[in-house]
Amino acid sequence: MVVFNQKASNGSTKSSSPSTNISKTINLDQGDPTVFEPYWRKMGDKCTMVISASDSMSYFSDAGNLCWFLEPKLGDSIRNLHHEIGNAKSNGRHIVVGTGSTQLYQAALYALSSSPDRTHPISVVSAAPYYSQYPEETDYLRSGLYKWAGDAYKFDKEEDGNTNYIEVVNSPSNPDGSIREAVVKRTGGKLIHDLAYYWPQYTPITRPADHDIMLFTFSKCTGHAGSRIGWALVKDTEVAKKMIKFIELNSIGVSKESQLRAAMILGKLSDNSYQNLNSNKPDNFFEFSQCLLAERWKKLREVVKRNQLFILPDYPLEYCNFTRKFTQSHPAFAWLQCKEEDVDCEKLIKAHKMMVRGGVRFGAEKKYVRVSMLSSEVVFNLFLQRLSAIKGNFN
Amino acid sequence: MVVFNQKASNGSTKSSSPSTNISKTINLDQGDPTVFEPYWRKMGDKCTMVISASDSMSYFSDAGNLCWFLEPKLGDSIRNLHHEIGNAKSNGRHIVVGTGSTQLYQAALYALSSSPDRTHPISVVSAAPYYSQYPEETDYLRSGLYKWAGDAYKFDKEEDGNTNYIEVVNSPSNPDGSIREAVVKRTGGKLIHDLAYYWPQYTPITRPADHDIMLFTFSKCTGHAGSRIGWALVKDTEVAKKMIKFIELNSIGVSKESQLRAAMILGKLSDNSYQNLNSNKPDNFFEFSQCLLAERWKKLREVVKRNQLFILPDYPLEYCNFTRKFTQSHPAFAWLQCKEEDVDCEKLIKAHKMMVRGGVRFGAEKKYVRVSMLSSEVVFNLFLQRLSAIKGNFN
Repeated sequence: MVVFNQKASNGSTKSSSPSTNISKTINLDQGDPTVFEPYWRKMGDKCTMVISASDSMSYFSDAGNLCWFLEPKLGDSIRNLHHEIGNAKSNGRHIVVGTGSTQLYQAALYALSSSPDRTHPISVVSAAPYYSQYPEETDYLRSGLYKWAGDAYKFDKEEDGNTNYIEVVNSPSNPDGSIREAVVKRTGGKLIHDLAYYWPQYTPITRPADHDIMLFTFSKCTGHAGSRIGWALVKDTEVAKKMIKFIELNSIGVSKESQLRAAMILGKLSDNSYQNLNSNKPDNFFEFSQCLLAERWKKLREVVKRNQLFILPDYPLEYCNFTRKFTQSHPAFAWLQCKEEDVDCEKLIKAHKMMVRGGVRFGAEKKYVRVSMLSSEVVFNLFLQRLSAIKGNFN
Repeated sequence: MVVFNQKASNGSTKSSSPSTNISKTINLDQGDPTVFEPYWRKMGDKCTMVISASDSMSYFSDAGNLCWFLEPKLGDSIRNLHHEIGNAKSNGRHIVVGTGSTQLYQAALYALSSSPDRTHPISVVSAAPYYSQYPEETDYLRSGLYKWAGDAYKFDKEEDGNTNYIEVVNSPSNPDGSIREAVVKRTGGKLIHDLAYYWPQYTPITRPADHDIMLFTFSKCTGHAGSRIGWALVKDTEVAKKMIKFIELNSIGVSKESQLRAAMILGKLSDNSYQNLNSNKPDNFFEFSQCLLAERWKKLREVVKRNQLFILPDYPLEYCNFTRKFTQSHPAFAWLQCKEEDVDCEKLIKAHKMMVRGGVRFGAEKKYVRVSMLSSEVVFNLFLQRLSAIKGNFN
């Protein structure tokens, strides 16, 4: 299935000029994070990158580093940012940069499964509802090293006692925003922690994450999805080496232009003192974004409460070490559930000209759908209008 | 084997400040194209890219295009450049952008092999000496879709008559610079043409290439290896769709920053009228680069002639439609052969503090090595010095 293309043909995804024709289908399927664009527009030339024709021509960024294609400035920005936000321990870890965390997910699978004596592919599991792309990203090349084995809860209950597995822990979870821990209770398994959404705008930062392999992405941190920059924090040197080898074989490194831009923008995030935003919103990116998503969630919960057709998850109030306030999660996606049991929720919502992703893709029931909360303001408002209008049609 | 990292640890690969310590090993293993850097430095701010913090944040570049992640300006620059140079037919083809041609090679393998009813991996072959990375790029994930099957000449002689194969035609060839055509004489095979070096600085442009899948890369065209931009010209829509799907699953598109920079730089290549280069060399990039490589090859042939230990390939004089002159090839690599039969040429050269790639890696004999001709000026001069010095030691 062409995940992106088929949804994009309505043209409503272009962030700078969204098609807001009332008759057109709006795209809430992908998590294209255009919600953050106005913040960066207000930054004006404070984060403008200038690169001359002779800059960064070589394959190499730092020949002396294990990750020879990592721009040193990006490594510095990443460590400073994790220290500032307090969401992950980065000291003593290798940083491996990737073409988005998508490439790094595959690099991690390779690193944890490739050995000359492997005779069968290792099972890859994740607790349902799991990120809809894990199955296809794992299986599209029919690798002899690893294969998708579905829901981690089901795998845990299997009686074969197979200790040869990789569990992907996605926390906060895409699609449902819940905080996750590993669910398979066997010794010997290997873990990949996909922490794409562990940033203050989405969820309270309760502790610095401290796992063997942690994946992050520029897309979900600041909204720069087009740059295709992700990074892994990796404890074990041999695992880091194999991930680096994967990226060598897969794409001989990662765009220098994107790395340098990410280095500059992530560097600015640690700076809390923007004076010229000319807004009554907070100046710090994370506080600004948290307010913005909190407002959106409030509006969505009002619509859901009014039309009585859907259920949204509730999130506990927790103390965020970054904002120093008690807050709830305001996830990047709404995991919307139809109250009636037999309804195909995707079909229902699609009939009202909204592209969303059905629950079955996430290993869940068809009464669920995932809806992006990161669209542009215009598209988000159309979403609220159209969701409000469903009641009459459905009853 | 970590192809890049192990070679880089001597630090001699950093293009802007090569380590030229006379006692250090120099790196002529990869084809890091730093030879072209001085040209781009002289361009000054004529090709400087400026990108603000809110530019190109979306996943999408052109939602209405089959290749939804291709920046339209890059597509335009690519078509204009092929038209200007006359090295490939681009009209009526889909352009698929990739994270270097490395990612596109894998996308092409996927596109030509993925079908629900495939029960055995398809054989992938290329005529020896073949590009040393094809075997590992094909086999590292132990795909059930495709597998490396070695030298196309040997495959052609096998008597099973298997018509289920992919032949990679690399022309001009890396490592030996020869012009290639498909060698397997069976109907039903599928072809990938890797034309990374089919540019006027390396070889006479004798005709516009016209094949089903043609791969090019920014790295070898202009020397911008760090940008990781490649492109495929693809005739068949279904094949293009599958390549696009591969890139979605592999990395959800390609860096926008790199694409925009490549669009600008490739756009300038079609402009022959630079006035301010302040040099007695030609102003056009391809003419400038052709002169530069011709000079290097002349110097190398003089050294080889003097020390009587090695053989270099000869290339025919041909009319180049772009420069409108009769020229020889001046490949990006020298395919150096020891005259004595039993010599391990890589070992010999390594003993003289030069990292090169041994013939066995290319499916050839150990008396061959591949040497980069694209190093910086300082490193290239050290190479000539050290190669000259071998004679005494060896006899």
